Amino acid sequence: MKRENILVEALPYIRNLHGSKIVVKCGGHAIVNEESMENIIKDIVLLRYIGVETILVHGGGPEISRVMNELGIKPQIVDGLRVTDERTMEVVRMVLIGNVGTELVSKIGSYGGKGIGLSGKDGRLFTAKKKGKKKVVVEDVEKEIDLGYVGEIESVDPEMIDVVSSKGYIPVISPIAVDEEGRSLNVNADTVAGEIAISIGAKKLMMMTNVDGVMRDPEDKETIFSKMTPEYAEDLKKEGVIEGGMIPKVDSCVRAVEGGVEKTHIINGEKPHSLLLELFTDEGVGTMIHKG
Amino acid sequence: MKRENILVEALPYIRNLHGSKIVVKCGGHAIVNEESMENIIKDIVLLRYIGVETILVHGGGPEISRVMNELGIKPQIVDGLRVTDERTMEVVRMVLIGNVGTELVSKIGSYGGKGIGLSGKDGRLFTAKKKGKKKVVVEDVEKEIDLGYVGEIESVDPEMIDVVSSKGYIPVISPIAVDEEGRSLNVNADTVAGEIAISIGAKKLMMMTNVDGVMRDPEDKETIFSKMTPEYAEDLKKEGVIEGGMIPKVDSCVRAVEGGVEKTHIINGEKPHSLLLELFTDEGVGTMIHKG
Amino acid sequence: MKRENILVEALPYIRNLHGSKIVVKCGGHAIVNEESMENIIKDIVLLRYIGVETILVHGGGPEISRVMNELGIKPQIVDGLRVTDERTMEVVRMVLIGNVGTELVSKIGSYGGKGIGLSGKDGRLFTAKKKGKKKVVVEDVEKEIDLGYVGEIESVDPEMIDVVSSKGYIPVISPIAVDEEGRSLNVNADTVAGEIAISIGAKKLMMMTNVDGVMRDPEDKETIFSKMTPEYAEDLKKEGVIEGGMIPKVDSCVRAVEGGVEKTHIINGEKPHSLLLELFTDEGVGTMIHKG
Amino acid sequence: MKRENILVEALPYIRNLHGSKIVVKCGGHAIVNEESMENIIKDIVLLRYIGVETILVHGGGPEISRVMNELGIKPQIVDGLRVTDERTMEVVRMVLIGNVGTELVSKIGSYGGKGIGLSGKDGRLFTAKKKGKKKVVVEDVEKEIDLGYVGEIESVDPEMIDVVSSKGYIPVISPIAVDEEGRSLNVNADTVAGEIAISIGAKKLMMMTNVDGVMRDPEDKETIFSKMTPEYAEDLKKEGVIEGGMIPKVDSCVRAVEGGVEKTHIINGEKPHSLLLELFTDEGVGTMIHKG
Amino acid sequence: MKRENILVEALPYIRNLHGSKIVVKCGGHAIVNEESMENIIKDIVLLRYIGVETILVHGGGPEISRVMNELGIKPQIVDGLRVTDERTMEVVRMVLIGNVGTELVSKIGSYGGKGIGLSGKDGRLFTAKKKGKKKVVVEDVEKEIDLGYVGEIESVDPEMIDVVSSKGYIPVISPIAVDEEGRSLNVNADTVAGEIAISIGAKKLMMMTNVDGVMRDPEDKETIFSKMTPEYAEDLKKEGVIEGGMIPKVDSCVRAVEGGVEKTHIINGEKPHSLLLELFTDEGVGTMIHKG
Amino acid sequence: MKRENILVEALPYIRNLHGSKIVVKCGGHAIVNEESMENIIKDIVLLRYIGVETILVHGGGPEISRVMNELGIKPQIVDGLRVTDERTMEVVRMVLIGNVGTELVSKIGSYGGKGIGLSGKDGRLFTAKKKGKKKVVVEDVEKEIDLGYVGEIESVDPEMIDVVSSKGYIPVISPIAVDEEGRSLNVNADTVAGEIAISIGAKKLMMMTNVDGVMRDPEDKETIFSKMTPEYAEDLKKEGVIEGGMIPKVDSCVRAVEGGVEKTHIINGEKPHSLLLELFTDEGVGTMIHKG
Repeated sequence: MKRENILVEALPYIRNLHGSKIVVKCGGHAIVNEESMENIIKDIVLLRYIGVETILVHGGGPEISRVMNELGIKPQIVDGLRVTDERTMEVVRMVLIGNVGTELVSKIGSYGGKGIGLSGKDGRLFTAKKKGKKKVVVEDVEKEIDLGYVGEIESVDPEMIDVVSSKGYIPVISPIAVDEEGRSLNVNADTVAGEIAISIGAKKLMMMTNVDGVMRDPEDKETIFSKMTPEYAEDLKKEGVIEGGMIPKVDSCVRAVEGGVEKTHIINGEKPHSLLLELFTDEGVGTMIHKG
Repeated sequence: MKRENILVEALPYIRNLHGSKIVVKCGGHAIVNEESMENIIKDIVLLRYIGVETILVHGGGPEISRVMNELGIKPQIVDGLRVTDERTMEVVRMVLIGNVGTELVSKIGSYGGKGIGLSGKDGRLFTAKKKGKKKVVVEDVEKEIDLGYVGEIESVDPEMIDVVSSKGYIPVISPIAVDEEGRSLNVNADTVAGEIAISIGAKKLMMMTNVDGVMRDPEDKETIFSKMTPEYAEDLKKEGVIEGGMIPKVDSCVRAVEGGVEKTHIINGEKPHSLLLELFTDEGVGTMIHKG
Repeated sequence: MKRENILVEALPYIRNLHGSKIVVKCGGHAIVNEESMENIIKDIVLLRYIGVETILVHGGGPEISRVMNELGIKPQIVDGLRVTDERTMEVVRMVLIGNVGTELVSKIGSYGGKGIGLSGKDGRLFTAKKKGKKKVVVEDVEKEIDLGYVGEIESVDPEMIDVVSSKGYIPVISPIAVDEEGRSLNVNADTVAGEIAISIGAKKLMMMTNVDGVMRDPEDKETIFSKMTPEYAEDLKKEGVIEGGMIPKVDSCVRAVEGGVEKTHIINGEKPHSLLLELFTDEGVGTMIHKG
Repeated sequence: MKRENILVEALPYIRNLHGSKIVVKCGGHAIVNEESMENIIKDIVLLRYIGVETILVHGGGPEISRVMNELGIKPQIVDGLRVTDERTMEVVRMVLIGNVGTELVSKIGSYGGKGIGLSGKDGRLFTAKKKGKKKVVVEDVEKEIDLGYVGEIESVDPEMIDVVSSKGYIPVISPIAVDEEGRSLNVNADTVAGEIAISIGAKKLMMMTNVDGVMRDPEDKETIFSKMTPEYAEDLKKEGVIEGGMIPKVDSCVRAVEGGVEKTHIINGEKPHSLLLELFTDEGVGTMIHKG
Repeated sequence: MKRENILVEALPYIRNLHGSKIVVKCGGHAIVNEESMENIIKDIVLLRYIGVETILVHGGGPEISRVMNELGIKPQIVDGLRVTDERTMEVVRMVLIGNVGTELVSKIGSYGGKGIGLSGKDGRLFTAKKKGKKKVVVEDVEKEIDLGYVGEIESVDPEMIDVVSSKGYIPVISPIAVDEEGRSLNVNADTVAGEIAISIGAKKLMMMTNVDGVMRDPEDKETIFSKMTPEYAEDLKKEGVIEGGMIPKVDSCVRAVEGGVEKTHIINGEKPHSLLLELFTDEGVGTMIHKG
Repeated sequence: MKRENILVEALPYIRNLHGSKIVVKCGGHAIVNEESMENIIKDIVLLRYIGVETILVHGGGPEISRVMNELGIKPQIVDGLRVTDERTMEVVRMVLIGNVGTELVSKIGSYGGKGIGLSGKDGRLFTAKKKGKKKVVVEDVEKEIDLGYVGEIESVDPEMIDVVSSKGYIPVISPIAVDEEGRSLNVNADTVAGEIAISIGAKKLMMMTNVDGVMRDPEDKETIFSKMTPEYAEDLKKEGVIEGGMIPKVDSCVRAVEGGVEKTHIINGEKPHSLLLELFTDEGVGTMIHKG
């Protein structure tokens, strides 16, 4: 089809999105892939230009692990949570805010957008408290592990986002919270994305990951669920169909839907422009979780 | 090419146009062609959604002639100017404001835009004075003809456009001016478009007509001028290459360029989405008149 | 009394009206009378200058019939409703928006006000749906007539009025609505005036007609009702005292009062400055319908 | 003529004044006359309602003298200037701000306006410095008299007036200035009115006094000058035609005209509604001083 | 302690007060003491600079009595209320608005603040009605005394305060109300302070008086109550511990607390900077009345 | 002196600073000293509360070197400039933005301020280009060294600062610029502070360092220059009195003064609250460079 026709066909979708807010969560795997990242950034800048307030929340696991290795610190992941001692926390913060976030802001600038890097510390955007100890089973032995500087979100104050987003800036948010004492806490980026989506009244939450969505059989792409209700998602968790790293994503989506976000999506960030495909086609891509 | 790629490729063009103002002049021939009109309207609504303040100025010659015929009044055109007695003026006004303008506003609404019909009378947007008599040669005899209620623009006060355009409305402007005594005057739509483009500080003026642009040999599309300076346009007028209905279009473009409009274009409104083609491709279409 | 004393005596009335909104409905008969029209326009411009947001809604029956006759179309009125086929609709639209509305805007400009012509199509100010068929008795035989493009108002979105009125413009509204499909529908101007008065939170609705008000005996001006409640108006309708063209006026007033408009008035637009007389004297003129 | 016609006839004058600023100076004699004062206040409130920002500057000589007599202090006037020792200054301040200004604000409230009393001290609206000694001839002997707390205006900062006037309040200004040390200084009310008119960009300055204007022969009202230029006013001063208390009024008018005020007027505040008569008739009343 | 350390220690207090509103009532005794007044004014200007909207309400009993004596009028105080005939009312108004209020505004200006004098008359800030007759026992005989122009507050419209305070001005309020007929009424300054504190949503009400607070034994400063609830204050009134001039102060505090003011304080204005001591130390000074 | 007196004595200084903008540059040495940093942050938060828009620009040399050592990278400093290869650049960015900047924002939050971390990348706040090669003399041999990712500032766009500072946020700026290609460049923090001070129209630029100011004999504190002109500073550079790390500080001050900054100061950040001492005493501390 001709370029001009495609632009015109986008009109109903643009009209529908214009003036709304969308939170995009982008995992560390999508980010280390230069091409994926560029595609996602282009999509986000485009959305901003057609009048969508877009907020990017990023992860950065692989980058953190790389730098820790360079420093000779052994990363320790328990149940998908990074055990975070003081030195690890420093690395996490440096990598997420100083490297990953800054790089994304830089890319946004390269495509003509105006990015701004934020974390929970800026204007106390989001605060957390320590998770405390966690029971885990290691080699058949149950023991308690202190997760260290890992936090659970306590509150979100979206003022900072409003101030900059209303002026055309695209906030790029690193998942580092601040606690009562002003210390940094490592928080789950999926959770941050969900909570921010709720607090700003987002229309959509887009979880960009490296699989195509929720599938009954991860080996068989045909078994993807194109949509589900929060209730059905809970059932699938119980059945064990939703497991591992997909759990925090689905949980954040479910919580966001219950907190008023219209539609949430889990899509494959490694497929070029999957974000636009989801937003600008009727069929969409990935898995949508929304109220029935 | 895939839809999502085309959207992304539009990004640099969108970035460039975002926040600017564009005046589109659409002639009566394009409007009577239902399909052309729909295409132009879709393009305009799309432009508004990506942050371009778009103003539509329309003509309506064929519609006026049709209604005059129905009323048994014989249209009289001298040198491209409609001799306009009092009864003709009433028909012109009814058709342009009541039919053509209203229909365009309606179409804009159908595609999700917010249109508003305006003429020179609304908030005294543009005023004119009578042209007076004109010398013409009819059957080798020179005589003077009183053109009646035909006017030359005297002043433009863009406040009304600013008020509605800044709120997201798309002004649809009928070329009926008001004079000192509050009477209606028929003014050339090309001229109205040019003067409004200057007064609002438009970045571009787009003349949608039914030919592909300025051509050395109208029979041979290969002879189109893809760009020219105001000076060169004057030369082509003297040579007789630019003649007839093309003269007021070129004149308005030249005057607009001299009044600060960055680029002016004469393009074929009957080609689907030629407006987008011009704005979203490097090569463009039609003839561009701009400062060297 | 001396001029300066009269101005000073107007002070309490001005104080009372300052900052409020008033909708004035002006019928087609008042408009064809050049002198009445000029007087009404002067009054409206004066009101705007003393800080009253004034909105003018106009009819135009006689003008429509005149142009239809010129075009050789026979007007057909059933129970006060104009049967409106497609060709008639075109004429109605041309005359109301293109001639009558434009002329009123022009007059407002002549007296130093800033008018702007609007219809239901501008910014989708008011939408309607087709009335469908209507049972009528013609020569003792009951039959169903399709009224064609005659509509009933479905919704009013006053944003467009607010945008321009807050900037000092006087909206002049033609009673042409738009339907779901973007088609024009002919709607009753009295109803439009009432619905707009409700939607903008008007303090007053003024129905300018060509009789002095509601009278028990139309032949005897002494039998005028100077005020009545909505309930009493219903009784008079049942009694047959209120009949014919007075019915939609009274109905609109009753509905406006129930919709929160403080006071509604039916007054004689042919009496010079009856609008000011009503607003600037204690005794008032015409018939006032308001909550007890 | 009928009330409604008079209101309509006022329209061109209202249009002309709408949105402009007018400073009215009202002398002590007009104020002690209850009826004059009420008439002037009514006129001012009316002007505010039709969109004129009106500022009232008042004097209060007779009131000051009355209270001084009650306190057993003998007023001493030299060349039209009140010799003001510390105790006198206290009385002047109490009477002007506490009695006269407050009473005028109260009256404005009674007629539905929103008044606010101000002096040079509020927000340091106007500052002055001591005039110092003055040479006078008493019984053929020239001597120097220290005028005490009598000041000459040094600067005007109209911010305070703008803040309240833009919100619909009518400032009532007492001619008490503040000096560098924060002390009160008695300043001439005519001068205050003129300086404020200049600083706020007033369109008109109205000096309400107890004579009809500048007359060649004060006994013969026929000899009034209906208009004059600043230059001619200077000539009349040299001739001695303008003398006594008329001098500071004329001087303030001349200075105001030179400072950009369009028209200045000296009119009789004791004639009912002379303010409106001047503003709402072509012929006007009193003497107008303006640029030729 | 070093200057810079003290400033830094003030930080938590500043943070806590920043953006809030505080009403300070300052009695006539504090005002006649030049040093006390200067100290209070300095404190108020400082508060304004650190972002606290401060409103000063003043009394002026001693000044009123002084001027009445000078005029040969014998002040008559019954149960702490000044019997106010017409002549007395004039003096009260002159002294409070013209002398005391103006002097305070002047002092504010001297320390770099922007003061503005207001009374109940300005913008009808507060209205009152006459108290009527009051039963008193004089020499064992009960009789009724007409208090004259003494009023009870009926309504407060804080618009005027908001307009000026939001622009950085410090309102200085004289306790003169206006009644329905536009007459001046003498009202209790403590009551005015309390009612204004409620109407503007003040965080604190500070009553500056000439004793250290509420004491069980006025002779023994050790018996001061550092805090109490409204209920306890009522008990102390019944016990007779709170009596005389302390009653209206305590009553205003109690009413303010019940009207939503967070904390109210009775402190000694004659102690240098007691206002700052109360606001910038944890221990505070004087008596605080607040909800338990 | 008593606390309350000291607060009151600060009033004239507060008045003078209120509403102005101050840029504070804080070097890496001050930051690694926990106590110094806390003191500076407290001072900055205090300034913000008294209405001073404060912007903090930080360095971080020691921190960068520490992390580089941990990573086994050998820092290489040539003529005070860090040779910055790609890997070093990554560390610089991580440390400055991710650690130092974030920590400062966190501290601001602890003292009740609202901080926000920014670098040149956020909203393209400041851009730079590569410095290229530099001639150095190493062991008597002149050679050229490529400084790598070290940049010179090309442009500053203060919009981002204005957006957040006008809302009460305190920007904390890391000296990482972005170049044309979107790459990170290491720029001198003193220069960044100076250029930002110029671009936002700062009243003062405060260079917090670890010496007391510019001294003729660094060993003898008595030889400090309390003030100097830009011209004199140039002379002292030529004489060699100003040398080493003091040169970029003095250069930035000189350039800031020439760019319109009123006063610039070089002070010892390790002395507790030297910032307040400079701002709140007449004598000041350190060396002031300003126009004569």
